[in-house]
Amino acid sequence: MMIKTVIKGDIVFQKEPTKFVTIKSGYITIENGKIASVSDALKVDGDYEFLDFDGKLVVPGLVDTHLHAPQNAFRGTDMDLELIDWLNKSPFSEEAKYSGAEYAEKAYGIFTEGLKNSATTRACIFATIHKDATVLIMNMLEDSGLVTYVGKVNMDRNSPDALTEKSADRSIIDTVSVIEATKNLKNTKPIITPRFTPSCSDELMKKLGILRQKYGLPVQSHLSENLGEIELVKFLHPEVDFYAQTYDNNGLFGKSLNGESFKTVMAHCVWSGDGERKLIKDNGVYIAHSPISNLNLSSGIAPVRRFLNEGLKVTLATDVAGGHTKSMFSVMVSCVQVSKMYWRLVDQTLPPITFAEAFYMATAAGGEFFGKVGRFESGYDADILVLDDGVIPSCTTLSPDNRLERYAYLNGDLRSGGICAKFVKGKRIF
Amino acid sequence: MMIKTVIKGDIVFQKEPTKFVTIKSGYITIENGKIASVSDALKVDGDYEFLDFDGKLVVPGLVDTHLHAPQNAFRGTDMDLELIDWLNKSPFSEEAKYSGAEYAEKAYGIFTEGLKNSATTRACIFATIHKDATVLIMNMLEDSGLVTYVGKVNMDRNSPDALTEKSADRSIIDTVSVIEATKNLKNTKPIITPRFTPSCSDELMKKLGILRQKYGLPVQSHLSENLGEIELVKFLHPEVDFYAQTYDNNGLFGKSLNGESFKTVMAHCVWSGDGERKLIKDNGVYIAHSPISNLNLSSGIAPVRRFLNEGLKVTLATDVAGGHTKSMFSVMVSCVQVSKMYWRLVDQTLPPITFAEAFYMATAAGGEFFGKVGRFESGYDADILVLDDGVIPSCTTLSPDNRLERYAYLNGDLRSGGICAKFVKGKRIF
Repeated sequence: MMIKTVIKGDIVFQKEPTKFVTIKSGYITIENGKIASVSDALKVDGDYEFLDFDGKLVVPGLVDTHLHAPQNAFRGTDMDLELIDWLNKSPFSEEAKYSGAEYAEKAYGIFTEGLKNSATTRACIFATIHKDATVLIMNMLEDSGLVTYVGKVNMDRNSPDALTEKSADRSIIDTVSVIEATKNLKNTKPIITPRFTPSCSDELMKKLGILRQKYGLPVQSHLSENLGEIELVKFLHPEVDFYAQTYDNNGLFGKSLNGESFKTVMAHCVWSGDGERKLIKDNGVYIAHSPISNLNLSSGIAPVRRFLNEGLKVTLATDVAGGHTKSMFSVMVSCVQVSKMYWRLVDQTLPPITFAEAFYMATAAGGEFFGKVGRFESGYDADILVLDDGVIPSCTTLSPDNRLERYAYLNGDLRSGGICAKFVKGKRIF
Repeated sequence: MMIKTVIKGDIVFQKEPTKFVTIKSGYITIENGKIASVSDALKVDGDYEFLDFDGKLVVPGLVDTHLHAPQNAFRGTDMDLELIDWLNKSPFSEEAKYSGAEYAEKAYGIFTEGLKNSATTRACIFATIHKDATVLIMNMLEDSGLVTYVGKVNMDRNSPDALTEKSADRSIIDTVSVIEATKNLKNTKPIITPRFTPSCSDELMKKLGILRQKYGLPVQSHLSENLGEIELVKFLHPEVDFYAQTYDNNGLFGKSLNGESFKTVMAHCVWSGDGERKLIKDNGVYIAHSPISNLNLSSGIAPVRRFLNEGLKVTLATDVAGGHTKSMFSVMVSCVQVSKMYWRLVDQTLPPITFAEAFYMATAAGGEFFGKVGRFESGYDADILVLDDGVIPSCTTLSPDNRLERYAYLNGDLRSGGICAKFVKGKRIF
């Protein structure tokens, strides 16, 4: 039997990156979890559930293409440190705790509840090296109703003892065991996750490429985030011309060694040069732009306008906990802000990113990584947020798209802060 | 009769900019609105009121040294525009509305309520050119219990008709009438407020300097915010070497023409050159660093580390509504973030600002503009915030100063977001 739902509200969405389409008091019809129609009139036959959010904003759900679940526990602390010092102080000591089931259950419980109550509907998530804790969080996320990719992290060199897997084979065996243990989950899927080149041996990278191909999985990792990190990769891999080749040479960068394409998302790309950007484009790799993290860790500003001019796929990410917030609205704002600084201080040929463009990256562009997601178009998954911007005291009358901008700038990411309903694949999460 | 209050909690404060002093489960004694003692033991004689905030953070109140009350109404909108375009679109059209008592009452009511419920205890505020609306907001602020300087704005050239005062004399007469009408207010004081040089004729500037001296008032204005603005000042004033001289030549820049010193706060100073910075220092002028506004309006990054190295007085400000948020915690975070970008992208000899330094600017440094304010030291005004960081779900144990950093990064500025008590001059605001 067909299940139909109609949502009424002030609809704001995009067909293209540079502008918004708005329908005041419009209707979205959902059929079997997918958008059936978006219209200024009620167009539906037969029985349906009617949800009246008149006066509230109805927008696509937000897609966070890069964050670290275990780092949620220390968000907003030790923010005076730069990447490598920070890694050693905060993430590495925290991630070691996830060898224990009790801690993992508590910390991942807080993380999952926070993500569920946020504006994020889909996410690409790093767990830790620990297989049991990774299976645990994948089950928690499945229960949340969100749709996510979750990676057991692989790392077998240049890491603290507690986070160094004993061998490449051990790392692969544990990865397989996570894949097998979670194969019946519907909304929570594994993703191959070499932490980053400095922490993965050549043998591990090679075996991950083979494993990826065997299971047909996507890949997530880090790329050209920080100048010190890039120097380290150069030292470890004098044989490559640029960092991305360390992934690509092992079939972990959007194309298998046999030429088959698969989805890959790389966080940061702040310092990717001409050759690296060309490979990103040729291989269809998604960039997870994480401006708040790049500020906090003194990494720099990714030239997003250049990426867009060159036709690269740019998505947005919180990068919890290099980024201190899980709010994708805050990431949009930061994306606009840092692009203004890049224009002002670095290259006046690259105009700032507009709010509309940032919103598109967080919805349609990020959604593409998950399939037909992130757009209000017939056949797309019904991932929908309802925002009550009436929580912002106001004495002005604004158009729905201006209200959305204001909401993004002024509001946090809290269910209590105005997100009054959230749907993923048509299912109401809260 | 002496009124004594003792506050118990996890006290975090500073004696110097680079570090925190923490007293877990400590005691602050307040006598007649002033800090009497800060200690790890209860030290008080006679009767006293005891307020037990054990487990919560107790920190100095935050001082916002630059914001525009009428711009509160459009916070977070039209953020894709640069300064001059934005001024014409948003602030100027909004500010014109404050000629009407009804609109002013509604909008300033929302503003005052928001500021009251925020973490801000003291502020330097721009109103509009309108005398009645300025007197109105000053009375509202007096009722709030906050301590503020409020300026009727002066502007008699290069502005839209509705915001151009008919003559310099008219502007002065209206300013005097605000000063006279508010002379009995205890916590809400007038401040001379030429909007900025482009909107004030030479005659008006000169008369404002004389007026300031007559009433012994402080001054607030804007300085070297944006490159386009600086070009405009150069065009209007070919006779000066740098922008600040347009104020200083009229006795509006920390020193009267007769050499007498007075308090002046200048917003931004993003592009102040060597000569201008020397004058800022020589005249003891306070800089209101407004990093969020400078990002939003594509102005640039003020080199705060250079300011500090040179011994300038740097305070922090939201600059509502170039800055979209009234949260001084968010301003601290942004101050740290942009200093990292300045270091990374502009000048590697100027290390980033630390969180401790940013907190100091928002408390002790800004407080100095108001007198003995912003420090937990005997004889200072008892401006105190109590923060319940238990609202942040957590599975880690942190020191009080790390908890404060986390609170600043993760929390907004809402009474409902964990600010559970606020005291100004020892009086509880909520």
